[in-house]
Amino acid sequence: MGNKEPIIITDKDEMRQWSRSIRAQSNTIGLVPTMGYLHEGHLSLIQESHKHTNFTVVSIYVNPGQFSPNEDLSTYPSDFLGDIQKLKSIPGGVDVVFHPQNLYDYGKNNGVKNDENQEEVKVVSCVENSGMGHETWVRVEKLEKGLCGESRPVFFRGVATIVAKLFNIVEPDVAVFGKKDYQQWRIIQRMVRDLDFGIKVIGAELIRDEDGLARSSRNVRLSPEERKKALSINKSLSNAKSAAGKGHIDCKVLRDSVIHAIHEAGGEVDYAEIIDQESLESMNEIKSPAVFCVAAWFGNVRLIDNMEINV
Amino acid sequence: MGNKEPIIITDKDEMRQWSRSIRAQSNTIGLVPTMGYLHEGHLSLIQESHKHTNFTVVSIYVNPGQFSPNEDLSTYPSDFLGDIQKLKSIPGGVDVVFHPQNLYDYGKNNGVKNDENQEEVKVVSCVENSGMGHETWVRVEKLEKGLCGESRPVFFRGVATIVAKLFNIVEPDVAVFGKKDYQQWRIIQRMVRDLDFGIKVIGAELIRDEDGLARSSRNVRLSPEERKKALSINKSLSNAKSAAGKGHIDCKVLRDSVIHAIHEAGGEVDYAEIIDQESLESMNEIKSPAVFCVAAWFGNVRLIDNMEINV
Repeated sequence: MGNKEPIIITDKDEMRQWSRSIRAQSNTIGLVPTMGYLHEGHLSLIQESHKHTNFTVVSIYVNPGQFSPNEDLSTYPSDFLGDIQKLKSIPGGVDVVFHPQNLYDYGKNNGVKNDENQEEVKVVSCVENSGMGHETWVRVEKLEKGLCGESRPVFFRGVATIVAKLFNIVEPDVAVFGKKDYQQWRIIQRMVRDLDFGIKVIGAELIRDEDGLARSSRNVRLSPEERKKALSINKSLSNAKSAAGKGHIDCKVLRDSVIHAIHEAGGEVDYAEIIDQESLESMNEIKSPAVFCVAAWFGNVRLIDNMEINV
Repeated sequence: MGNKEPIIITDKDEMRQWSRSIRAQSNTIGLVPTMGYLHEGHLSLIQESHKHTNFTVVSIYVNPGQFSPNEDLSTYPSDFLGDIQKLKSIPGGVDVVFHPQNLYDYGKNNGVKNDENQEEVKVVSCVENSGMGHETWVRVEKLEKGLCGESRPVFFRGVATIVAKLFNIVEPDVAVFGKKDYQQWRIIQRMVRDLDFGIKVIGAELIRDEDGLARSSRNVRLSPEERKKALSINKSLSNAKSAAGKGHIDCKVLRDSVIHAIHEAGGEVDYAEIIDQESLESMNEIKSPAVFCVAAWFGNVRLIDNMEINV
């Protein structure tokens, strides 16, 4: 099984051309957007894509547009060759790895056609505040607030915008996002609805290790002891879920129990919110499909996790 | 010549399906977005589309998303049957008129798929501030400011968003916008670049009546005397352009001459700005491709006009 060699495409026009030629032959394309440094969570998204389409594109691109100036974009981990090896190992593999250098580089004259103006214009980055730099942003105005948007105010603006760009470059039929990043998944789903993209967004279930820890590339940075403590997130969420199933639907009580358990284990809670699955608005009692979202620090590792509660 | 009967499509899925089937047969599609109440300016955009593609779609949709609560959306003129007659009269005609009822109505469950949540959700409008209403907006953050964006702060947000929606529904190869709405044209062009839409944006030249007045549906509301006075816009812009051609490139002097001429004729200037053709930033001296943009009131009619100056 596996060992399919993906085509590596770095140019956006070439990427679109490939997609159009594939779709012209009545095939369907699934897109799995990633920032690379792949782990089994990503691989499960690719396997989800295989269920819906007969071609799969994985994009590997660390998006500068979702990092604040104070966040360290330059140290974001990457291992492109390792990623390719992992992609080859997946049953069915992937067809294309789209690996652009800079999606905010609009090239000579910044890509704006103007017959009268043939002079070269300096290429500027997306954070440039004047001239011909990138200045178009997609905002999902309510969903982007709260939870992770609270501490990272431009994060989801950057995510929605890069995903819109990738959708327009790859032109997929289906795009797969992990429910591990629940807020991100709902934001993309809403953007697709509101902007009428002809794309089906799939939310792939969160993957856990055997001990219950949600898979994340950050887990390797946990010491064995921290990892043990971090299991308190999953355990307390499970307890809250079964309590809700037994009729204990008071959100304050449920949140307090999770906060208490994580704190007892030695973690520091960033947020623990019970919210509506679609509007992401917080609720007092669980009377409709809810999701319990948690972010917590163990040592200097920030973990997120969530559990859907359908009463 | 003419009398081609367009297909009228009101459903967005049907619209996308038509486009995909047409493009699958190696055809190209041009889109001309309008709010209806068509005049010869619009018809010239359609003729421009014919030059680039072999199929043309005209959308007729009054976009609530670009009106402020204090602007009177409900009295925006419409004449759908008259529009169809005019479209039939154009040589080559149009293939499809896309005439949706409400592009912000996401239907049952608001279009968000959620297996666990089958209950009906109330449809809300784009101005709704809670629940499952439309909340995704495309902002072209610098170009949307200034000129017409000054007095209409949500206008270009609404324009960019509805055009993104129409692009995703119609999936055209080419889209035609009039240079009469210069700022709008540049905003759409920038959005297409920044979000990587696989669409070529064409700016169609501004059309003037024989006396030089820029064509607009608002011209019919001018009295014969007001119309005569309004010619001061075109005349003073022409004078400024030829002065610039002779080396008079001081923008303050050029602006003052236009403001003075319009004022003398009895008009009230909203703005008169000489700006860079792409960045739309104002300049002190015309040393690169510029455009002189004017908005002025004659009686209770607000007219806009512009002239490109390529020194």
